Amino acid sequence: MSKNLTSRSEDYSKWYNELVVKADLAENSAVRGCMVIKPYGYAIWEKMQAELDRMFKETGHQNAYFPLFVPKSLFEAEEKNAEGFAKECAIVTHYRLQNDPDKEGKLRVDPEAKLEEELIVRPTSEAIIWNTYKGWIQSYRDLPILINQWANVVRWEMRTRLFLRTAEFLWQEGHTAHATREEAMNEAELMNNVYAEFAEKYMAMPVIKGLKTESERFAGAEETFCIEALMQDGKALQAGTSHFLGQNFAKAFDVKFTNKEGKQDYVWATSWGVSTRLMGALIMTHSDDKGLVLPPNLAPYHVVIVPIHKTDEQLEAIDELANKLRADLKAKGISSKYDNRTTHRPGAKFAQYELQGVPMRIAIGPKDLENGTVELARRDTLTKEFVKVDELIPKLESLMKEIQDDLFQKAFDYRASHITEVDNFEDFKTVLEEKTGFISAHWDGTPETEDKIKEITKATIRCIPIYEEIEAGKCVYSGNPSKRRVLFAKAY
Amino acid sequence: MSKNLTSRSEDYSKWYNELVVKADLAENSAVRGCMVIKPYGYAIWEKMQAELDRMFKETGHQNAYFPLFVPKSLFEAEEKNAEGFAKECAIVTHYRLQNDPDKEGKLRVDPEAKLEEELIVRPTSEAIIWNTYKGWIQSYRDLPILINQWANVVRWEMRTRLFLRTAEFLWQEGHTAHATREEAMNEAELMNNVYAEFAEKYMAMPVIKGLKTESERFAGAEETFCIEALMQDGKALQAGTSHFLGQNFAKAFDVKFTNKEGKQDYVWATSWGVSTRLMGALIMTHSDDKGLVLPPNLAPYHVVIVPIHKTDEQLEAIDELANKLRADLKAKGISSKYDNRTTHRPGAKFAQYELQGVPMRIAIGPKDLENGTVELARRDTLTKEFVKVDELIPKLESLMKEIQDDLFQKAFDYRASHITEVDNFEDFKTVLEEKTGFISAHWDGTPETEDKIKEITKATIRCIPIYEEIEAGKCVYSGNPSKRRVLFAKAY
Repeated sequence: MSKNLTSRSEDYSKWYNELVVKADLAENSAVRGCMVIKPYGYAIWEKMQAELDRMFKETGHQNAYFPLFVPKSLFEAEEKNAEGFAKECAIVTHYRLQNDPDKEGKLRVDPEAKLEEELIVRPTSEAIIWNTYKGWIQSYRDLPILINQWANVVRWEMRTRLFLRTAEFLWQEGHTAHATREEAMNEAELMNNVYAEFAEKYMAMPVIKGLKTESERFAGAEETFCIEALMQDGKALQAGTSHFLGQNFAKAFDVKFTNKEGKQDYVWATSWGVSTRLMGALIMTHSDDKGLVLPPNLAPYHVVIVPIHKTDEQLEAIDELANKLRADLKAKGISSKYDNRTTHRPGAKFAQYELQGVPMRIAIGPKDLENGTVELARRDTLTKEFVKVDELIPKLESLMKEIQDDLFQKAFDYRASHITEVDNFEDFKTVLEEKTGFISAHWDGTPETEDKIKEITKATIRCIPIYEEIEAGKCVYSGNPSKRRVLFAKAY
Repeated sequence: MSKNLTSRSEDYSKWYNELVVKADLAENSAVRGCMVIKPYGYAIWEKMQAELDRMFKETGHQNAYFPLFVPKSLFEAEEKNAEGFAKECAIVTHYRLQNDPDKEGKLRVDPEAKLEEELIVRPTSEAIIWNTYKGWIQSYRDLPILINQWANVVRWEMRTRLFLRTAEFLWQEGHTAHATREEAMNEAELMNNVYAEFAEKYMAMPVIKGLKTESERFAGAEETFCIEALMQDGKALQAGTSHFLGQNFAKAFDVKFTNKEGKQDYVWATSWGVSTRLMGALIMTHSDDKGLVLPPNLAPYHVVIVPIHKTDEQLEAIDELANKLRADLKAKGISSKYDNRTTHRPGAKFAQYELQGVPMRIAIGPKDLENGTVELARRDTLTKEFVKVDELIPKLESLMKEIQDDLFQKAFDYRASHITEVDNFEDFKTVLEEKTGFISAHWDGTPETEDKIKEITKATIRCIPIYEEIEAGKCVYSGNPSKRRVLFAKAY
């Protein structure tokens, strides 16, 4: 495989697939549609997990763990949810293998070991969790329940892509129970805001907060909040969703509580999740033709130090400086890696760390030792400069923040220039094809128009933005009255 | 359900089951053999994970993630491993549900959506991982690979018990690849030592490090290191295992590398794991008839503060002191909870925190405010004393260490008094039944004798201790020559 990536302008999709594999983030496995997340990719996911987990706990949530399997009778209890996921379920039907009498050394499914009731590998856990909550909730005193779970889920997708759409993926799913509609609605909105804060502050990825239309909602939800991001190729990506589930699951699983007035009522619910899909969003927000670009807040290590030497004595002297620098960096909360492998040339190392998006690179050669300098390179701008050793640490400290901010600003500017207001359907189609990005247009509020636009253009309503001024108008497709603009885009 | 636990002397097994449920650690789910780990139980598991994860990283390991499913053809490739797990596998055979034409609103497995090759839900991941490593390893430069995975696994056990034996459980599994036999052996022993250090330092649970006999080894291993602990009822519990896998998986999956001399060789392997079973071990090492007893190093919070008041003014004054104490404790790294719920009486709160094993409890009443004291109770000893407020923080700091040490010492003493040297089979049986614990006895080294002793007494060889002096003798059962004593016990 060539060391260079296909360029984004040549074939964005190919560029993405190559980057994921060559930067050692993930690869396809022997199991159709399932990926192997490699150590470097997993280290980024761990950083994401740590920040999200902290944010969940700060907002009062606790972690727990519920079973991987959902008995079919529970799975089908909430009908809309079941219908939404039935076509992509992995189903366990047997619990034992036996020696295959026809093939020496091979195994086959033991036909005697058929389960009485099939088990669905969870595509999402509302069913098993609400069946459990039934036993936990009697009175308003037992509410709210604010629980999150870090888990793997399986959705048998036919067309898969690393991180973006895989049969198995890792995610977190929050499942909360409340005494009132209002409290549940506030929770759903709160968690969408937590996701937005995470995306912008850690991923350096600007997002639009909004509501899904009825046809784009989570199966079983009454309202779905979402954060939508814009990728470099002008396609939108749904980065997180938070659902107000009303009393649907409480009714399906008969979860009632006695309220303060002593009356019985069904419990109100939310659920919310983000997944390893965020890895795809991160890649497609910042990276370039040389590879991954990582915001410092999520980089497995912030700085890589590469020695450039000819003799062992030179390497020893560089080792000494590098180790001192690493200790100083550590004290400032900046993580580093020193790559003094002698099996690889500096040029190969430079290419590797560019491909892997390490935010800052320091190269130290014999001349640098003489001059008391190092060469400092920024991954995001690909700029290089010589920095005096005694100015290096404060320089890196300020760069950490600067790179994080610059990446956000660059992505923000790109997005700002790719939200286009459009008032007729011809412009809609032209902008969608030629300019790409989000199209802000009036919509008459009917699923029929939404479907028709999707059919003609492949664009969907990504969200009905909240926190924005509302202006009435005429639907860009039907000409019928519209209460407000919504955002359309082609999407991942 | 009664608030009091069955006493340990009355029925140890019942005591355990009640404790797990009443202390809010875990409960059975709607899925046969699968448990729900509740927030308080999960918080302990998270503490375990955090320490282990740090120790793995400090010894050079990285995390990654491999698929949940193993295609049958890969699963059966390493025959001994396949044979060992074949009888307890959950098997996915279909990937879609459809509406049941015979039952309105119900679903059934779509017979058209049968997988060409069945997928095994991983009972352990050697197969899928070594199939992946094949693509990662060409030369000695690619070695060692030092990877760990945090994951769920499924073993379709017939008799299950919360934490101790469940169909689905959470664990970590390390999978490493090496250029030489010696390096792989050292790795397997190193990780067993890491487990032992974790058990003793964090769980306050003394363990014996040893090797498994051939018949107790992991299926597919050439040598299994283990740590064995002794529970309060005199039964042993295998708390962790680390396997030297030789070249078995490399051969099964054809994973070769070019060594420094330019020759091709098969790669050497290890795997090692601990699971949520450790929760059971923790419970059965320290707890008493009032409930869970937690070592401070793994407690979700170290101190609970309970106000005792009649009037709102009293509560306000106590609130103020409690909040100041909590801030001071936090600064010392001591986590606390302040339970000022007005829906529950102090007595109910005391019982709850005793049941949940919170290491230290502070009660503050109006008299205390006057006297400048608080009442401090230790969960492990159930002792109480009044402590001056300005002496409280240093007192708690030293108690943290004291409780941790005392719990270890108590468990150590119990175990020391329950390792009995025995030199004839009559004594063997008597000690096993009456005194219980480990029996140190000579064994002739044959699986036949091992089986026979197991058949007669239900005791198994828990391990061949390492790091101990070796003394020759005669087998306690056969009278044949024995090279050394081994440890027998009945086990979980």
